[in-house]
Amino acid sequence: MQTRLRRIEGQVRGIERMVDDDRYCIDVLTQISAVQAALDKVALGLLDGHVRHCVAEGAEEGKSDVMSTELMAAVGRLMRRG
Amino acid sequence: MQTRLRRIEGQVRGIERMVDDDRYCIDVLTQISAVQAALDKVALGLLDGHVRHCVAEGAEEGKSDVMSTELMAAVGRLMRRG
Amino acid sequence: MQTRLRRIEGQVRGIERMVDDDRYCIDVLTQISAVQAALDKVALGLLDGHVRHCVAEGAEEGKSDVMSTELMAAVGRLMRRG
Amino acid sequence: MQTRLRRIEGQVRGIERMVDDDRYCIDVLTQISAVQAALDKVALGLLDGHVRHCVAEGAEEGKSDVMSTELMAAVGRLMRRG
Repeated sequence: MQTRLRRIEGQVRGIERMVDDDRYCIDVLTQISAVQAALDKVALGLLDGHVRHCVAEGAEEGKSDVMSTELMAAVGRLMRRG
Repeated sequence: MQTRLRRIEGQVRGIERMVDDDRYCIDVLTQISAVQAALDKVALGLLDGHVRHCVAEGAEEGKSDVMSTELMAAVGRLMRRG
Repeated sequence: MQTRLRRIEGQVRGIERMVDDDRYCIDVLTQISAVQAALDKVALGLLDGHVRHCVAEGAEEGKSDVMSTELMAAVGRLMRRG
Repeated sequence: MQTRLRRIEGQVRGIERMVDDDRYCIDVLTQISAVQAALDKVALGLLDGHVRHCVAEGAEEGKSDVMSTELMAAVGRLMRRG
């Protein structure tokens, strides 16, 4: 996950340079979509781990309800993108 | 736009630290959604400028067709996030 | 949920009429976004019920792994919209 | 476009039947994602036509500014899904 995040950080810096260099808007937009896709992958990876471990453990501790509410709020934000 | 991008870069670094510190997944996901929303704003700002300037100039140079195709491809990628 | 779905069905029929009546594109697009938002609500409602009931029951039957994989695939499709 | 919309209307009716028949949530969610993807295609088709015709004609009538503002608002709604 850290490698992906560092790569995303580098991609964002790259977009800054493109804007500095007044690169063509469509090319910059293409890079932004690539960062969006990469962030989605990180988010889905985190969510997957959360479902398999935190939510499962929470169920054993009788905390299913609050864990489900938290999980669904996170999924809602990801679907609405913010 | 550069200020927004630098802030986004800082947010991504912040997410790296959260993962390093083994912070709760839901909190990290909340930050990722915030970055997604911020990137969307940058993308919409770029697209707006592109429509008002590049597409308009392209129309005067008889390049409407290719500009429209490019624009729609960019919108499609943004809608599909990648 | 059935009421929401029937309303969405009616909204889609309404969009068909708008296209038939050659209504202004932006107005039709506004209706499509409204249907998207309504469908998201139905999807999140279904997902919420699935997490609270099916996934919880599956955990008791030792099926956490397959249920988590299914859940995450569904979330991925909803995020990518298809 | 009308054919696509009628197919989407049929898909929504199909989802109603699945809910009536208490079909497995993940299967219903898969259908909802399919409808989302189909609606995106209709929206992108409409947007494409709007950019190539309405926006182009608007430019000739000196209405570029208001048309760009409308277009960007529509793209923003589609990206945010509502």
